[in-house]
Amino acid sequence: MSLIVVGSVAFDTIETSYGRREKTVGGSATYCALAASFFTNPKIVAVVGEDFPSETLQFLKSRGIDTRGVQLKSGKTFHWEGKYGEDPNKRTTLKLELNVFKNFKPQLHPEYRKQEIIFLGNIDPDLQLDIVSQVEKPKLIAMDTIDHWIQNKPQSLLEVMEKVDVFFANDEEVKMLAQEKNLVKAGRKLVEKGPSLMVIKKGEHGALLLGRDFVFGILAHPCEEVIDPTGAGDCFAGGFLGYLDKIQSYEWKNIREAAVFGSVQASYAIEDFGINRFKNLSFSQITQRFKEFRHMVSF
Amino acid sequence: MSLIVVGSVAFDTIETSYGRREKTVGGSATYCALAASFFTNPKIVAVVGEDFPSETLQFLKSRGIDTRGVQLKSGKTFHWEGKYGEDPNKRTTLKLELNVFKNFKPQLHPEYRKQEIIFLGNIDPDLQLDIVSQVEKPKLIAMDTIDHWIQNKPQSLLEVMEKVDVFFANDEEVKMLAQEKNLVKAGRKLVEKGPSLMVIKKGEHGALLLGRDFVFGILAHPCEEVIDPTGAGDCFAGGFLGYLDKIQSYEWKNIREAAVFGSVQASYAIEDFGINRFKNLSFSQITQRFKEFRHMVSF
Repeated sequence: MSLIVVGSVAFDTIETSYGRREKTVGGSATYCALAASFFTNPKIVAVVGEDFPSETLQFLKSRGIDTRGVQLKSGKTFHWEGKYGEDPNKRTTLKLELNVFKNFKPQLHPEYRKQEIIFLGNIDPDLQLDIVSQVEKPKLIAMDTIDHWIQNKPQSLLEVMEKVDVFFANDEEVKMLAQEKNLVKAGRKLVEKGPSLMVIKKGEHGALLLGRDFVFGILAHPCEEVIDPTGAGDCFAGGFLGYLDKIQSYEWKNIREAAVFGSVQASYAIEDFGINRFKNLSFSQITQRFKEFRHMVSF
Repeated sequence: MSLIVVGSVAFDTIETSYGRREKTVGGSATYCALAASFFTNPKIVAVVGEDFPSETLQFLKSRGIDTRGVQLKSGKTFHWEGKYGEDPNKRTTLKLELNVFKNFKPQLHPEYRKQEIIFLGNIDPDLQLDIVSQVEKPKLIAMDTIDHWIQNKPQSLLEVMEKVDVFFANDEEVKMLAQEKNLVKAGRKLVEKGPSLMVIKKGEHGALLLGRDFVFGILAHPCEEVIDPTGAGDCFAGGFLGYLDKIQSYEWKNIREAAVFGSVQASYAIEDFGINRFKNLSFSQITQRFKEFRHMVSF
């Protein structure tokens, strides 16, 4: 039970073909920790402003999440506004107000430095590096990123990659970072840069996991109503890392199962706006969908 | 051993990022029958012109394909010219010379009318209907189509759909025909129109099979070099139907395996230009890749 999740806790204003939500709670750390909380007790490291609702922190705590690492700063909470087209895989950022997140430079509590699994959300790679330098004997470091850092800080990103075990990225990001148009080649190229595992997220097409001598593919749940795709990638990471933290084993067999739990959590996340789906999700629904996944791909 | 393949035998001029081939042999019936020929002895129904190389017909025969249904007409063979972009899923048709294919209106040989599995390649839906009316007691009719017919003959297409068991189409075609943007919803909508199984081909993302109470997903083989994607869909159909013809059983369990063999054949097709890969493919390579597929998705 030792998963640290570093990233954003934020407000999102979201428009999809199913409607619009103003300032609903989101953020990479929120999504990841919530998805992981069905398996373990993750510790969030993040920052929020005075406008952040204390009921949400209460809700996170009620899910067994340790929020002592969520700093409260004077000012406003990070706010993202985005819109999804008819194709839920395509989104446009309309507004990005960093607010208190601008000066986010977390110093991990001594107890946190001893934890075994670290998830670095899609923050500045220099910050990711700094956090890596703070942890003592991690068993597994995982990172995520976004196109913004690939375009603006590729060198820092490569430095972090050398130090991590698992790299989560979507297909476009993998191709962009590897400067290679074939996804499989691109993924294999990045495995050479440090991480022993690339987890390539492909939205409605599932995910492809590549290691030096390892390949595993999992489909997405065949979803008829994608209400809000926000956070699906972070929920994948949350399900994946939460499960590994629960079982404390990192064999390839476990990695496969972890990826399926990642896919399950991502599939639930998109069934409602923001983090709403996690408010009434049960562990038995998660294991039920895990079984459905197995049935869907078995032959 | 009773698979009839109706479609085109053609010349293709193809440009991909790996080069250009002038008038290489292609066509939906050629690809489908070749892919199926590793499992059964398919019978091709098609038309070629005087310019068609007799060595190719010899090659098809050498693979156990019955070519008695390939008519030789005075004139030139159907010729398609197309170009693929950096993204091998996107192609542009540069030229389409129907030639002898313009008046293709096959009358099935009495022996052929008694066969059990019929594959209707992406020809005019009115022709597909005509062929359906000629067969006597088919156990399984499968059809394919292209966007051209969806746009220009949707009513005829819907009439064929009412009479077939399996409908092969790619994701864009499924959405277009169902007039529905969510792929799963679109596929389920088409299942209501007649076919008991939709086989939705998604290129590098694999295939999704939907029936009324059935869902099965198979990934594509993680391919680092997509030399030429032409014919991959027809090879999927060939592997799928060839396997079912071989085992003569249509249980859902067999449908799953058939889809994997379809994916295997498609994955081999794209490893070389035109039909070249089938010239030196062995059955043990096919079963080997089938096993690799199983290993890739098992958890």
